[in-house]
Amino acid sequence: MAKLVEFAKKTKRLGREDPRRIIHSFKVGLAIALVSLFYYFEPLYKGFGISAMWAVLTVVVVFEFSVGGTLSRGLNRGLATFLASALGFGAHHLASLPGEKGEPILLGLFVFLLAAAVSFLRFFPEMKARYDYGLMIFILTFSLISVSAYHDDEVMRIAYERVITILIGIFTALFVCIFICPVWAGDDLHSLVANNIDKLANFFEAFVPLYLKISQEGEPEMTFLEGYKCVLNSKQTEESLANFAGWEPGHGKFRFRHPWKKYLKIGSQTRDCAYRIESLNGYLILNTETQIPEEIRGKMQDACINMSSEAVKALKELAFSIKTMTKPCSADSHITKSKIAAKNLKSLLSASLCKETEISEVMQAITVVSLLVDVVACTEKIAESVQE
Amino acid sequence: MAKLVEFAKKTKRLGREDPRRIIHSFKVGLAIALVSLFYYFEPLYKGFGISAMWAVLTVVVVFEFSVGGTLSRGLNRGLATFLASALGFGAHHLASLPGEKGEPILLGLFVFLLAAAVSFLRFFPEMKARYDYGLMIFILTFSLISVSAYHDDEVMRIAYERVITILIGIFTALFVCIFICPVWAGDDLHSLVANNIDKLANFFEAFVPLYLKISQEGEPEMTFLEGYKCVLNSKQTEESLANFAGWEPGHGKFRFRHPWKKYLKIGSQTRDCAYRIESLNGYLILNTETQIPEEIRGKMQDACINMSSEAVKALKELAFSIKTMTKPCSADSHITKSKIAAKNLKSLLSASLCKETEISEVMQAITVVSLLVDVVACTEKIAESVQE
Repeated sequence: MAKLVEFAKKTKRLGREDPRRIIHSFKVGLAIALVSLFYYFEPLYKGFGISAMWAVLTVVVVFEFSVGGTLSRGLNRGLATFLASALGFGAHHLASLPGEKGEPILLGLFVFLLAAAVSFLRFFPEMKARYDYGLMIFILTFSLISVSAYHDDEVMRIAYERVITILIGIFTALFVCIFICPVWAGDDLHSLVANNIDKLANFFEAFVPLYLKISQEGEPEMTFLEGYKCVLNSKQTEESLANFAGWEPGHGKFRFRHPWKKYLKIGSQTRDCAYRIESLNGYLILNTETQIPEEIRGKMQDACINMSSEAVKALKELAFSIKTMTKPCSADSHITKSKIAAKNLKSLLSASLCKETEISEVMQAITVVSLLVDVVACTEKIAESVQE
Repeated sequence: MAKLVEFAKKTKRLGREDPRRIIHSFKVGLAIALVSLFYYFEPLYKGFGISAMWAVLTVVVVFEFSVGGTLSRGLNRGLATFLASALGFGAHHLASLPGEKGEPILLGLFVFLLAAAVSFLRFFPEMKARYDYGLMIFILTFSLISVSAYHDDEVMRIAYERVITILIGIFTALFVCIFICPVWAGDDLHSLVANNIDKLANFFEAFVPLYLKISQEGEPEMTFLEGYKCVLNSKQTEESLANFAGWEPGHGKFRFRHPWKKYLKIGSQTRDCAYRIESLNGYLILNTETQIPEEIRGKMQDACINMSSEAVKALKELAFSIKTMTKPCSADSHITKSKIAAKNLKSLLSASLCKETEISEVMQAITVVSLLVDVVACTEKIAESVQE
């Protein structure tokens, strides 16, 4: 019972996090129900018979969350089925030349060799990224056609039906996927990249006051501090989204062949910045144990806040300019200001160094500042990339 | 022509990088050829007819690189097919109660609801990790059975044949996968985690001399410096390997239910360490532009080398102890030594600070040292985790 309640709560949370998930689920149901109409209407069923099963199978296997995903799988499946069928017939014809006895041996050999070769092809990184599914379907269809051709004399008709029903499945899936609340992988990638930059900005906004122990109104937002953590491992998500986005036709503000690769570049620079932040974050935890001397902190405060707030402004503007696809106009000036503040901070620190006795605690501050400066440098690089 | 040569070179390189890839490709070919024997031998074919196709399909879809992957997909497919078939019959029976007219409508409704519900279930992270494939097959089989039951009166026999042929496919795939040069995901995870720690050690070995510009015999090994980069993005690989490893029976030195989760913990700490290294690496590039003053460098040298070599020893021993599954005996003492060296280095630096004019360059050195100290702390955490 307790488990059931927990399950219900989790379902609710997942649905609220991204309502498109609920819509997607219903879309899958709809597409399958649509395609199974074939079975219920006599005239349609008469045309295809048992082959109609392939349409259902195709819809289930091809339907993905995003339009790009569905297109990628659909095209892979369609193309691979077509090519493999053709090749399968060729193999069948070739194998039947030496006569009845040799046919199964030759067919077996063909299947073995082709399956081995295509399996190896799946290890190629470029192939794996875009055509992995297609290669699998290629092996599958080739084996099925060339093997079942051995018994079926009507194999031509069956293969034809199969291709047609698979096409019907693909079109049904695409139709539902594109015309009912479409989820574009390109949109997702676009906002993911912008949000990740926002997350870095949020971190800074929360970090500097916390590090300098400036009391703020209200609780410090821990979610702001933790937000960057998901940026660290965003590589695979970004890459698969960019791959899917490459399959998508133009939509909304994106035309076909929008430079999705650029997003990957910005994404990787955002990650570089996040790695520095991860190092910085370690000092926040350390900082609860060792204190920075009061006087140094006082001196650091203004310059530090100045520098970080400029960096935050720059980051936020970059994220905003990605979101709205406009040129960031003042980001550069914010970065310059932030760099000047960083320089001031450095000279302030070095001036105060010699007078202090507790040098090791100042060293910590120096490290934090250096890392902050690094982050500003990273911000600059991101800014360069955003100006496409 | 040039492309063909390049392709051949790439094939050769991929094969040499991991010869198991070639073996795997032949294994796939063999498994498919084995299962297609059904078609060639009359007595076997008589038993199953067209259903034999499902065996081929299953082998192609289920066969993965590692034993764990194949087991995971095989069990998912087997179980999902069985459960969905049973449920499909139930739905068929339920839908036929109100009479001929209502049957297709009710069946369509069932299919719609179940497909939507299970599609949503695929968004649950725990489900997605382990049972994603099974859930898809569940939707697939349920739709196929309940839908084709509308027309086929022999549906019971067909479903029975389908389950049997799928089982045959799964067993063929598993047989070839396990008994011919098996690739264990557990082994892969084990050596991946150990090698990642080794890569960190390699980085240090190359970093300190390069940073201090101590001339070495031969070229500095850039591969050593770049090796850690793949550690940064190793999360997904480790998680999927750990998932697959969880399906594997005991093998070699691992028993069933080996604590694979612990590897993920070590892996994540290794990544934490790699993030610091990424920050450090930035200074190496910077360092080619700004020089550390000669005198400071001289002072730093001994302590720095001492500290890093102890850290390297500790890391290497940890990696070795994971590889051989023994307790690391001297890693702790190396870490302690390294920490003492770090302390010395810090006091050395702070002593020299006040006399220097070019404070900003010393600051850089301080940052590098602080980061190095952080890395040593990370090493300590890894050491704790390794002692399982």
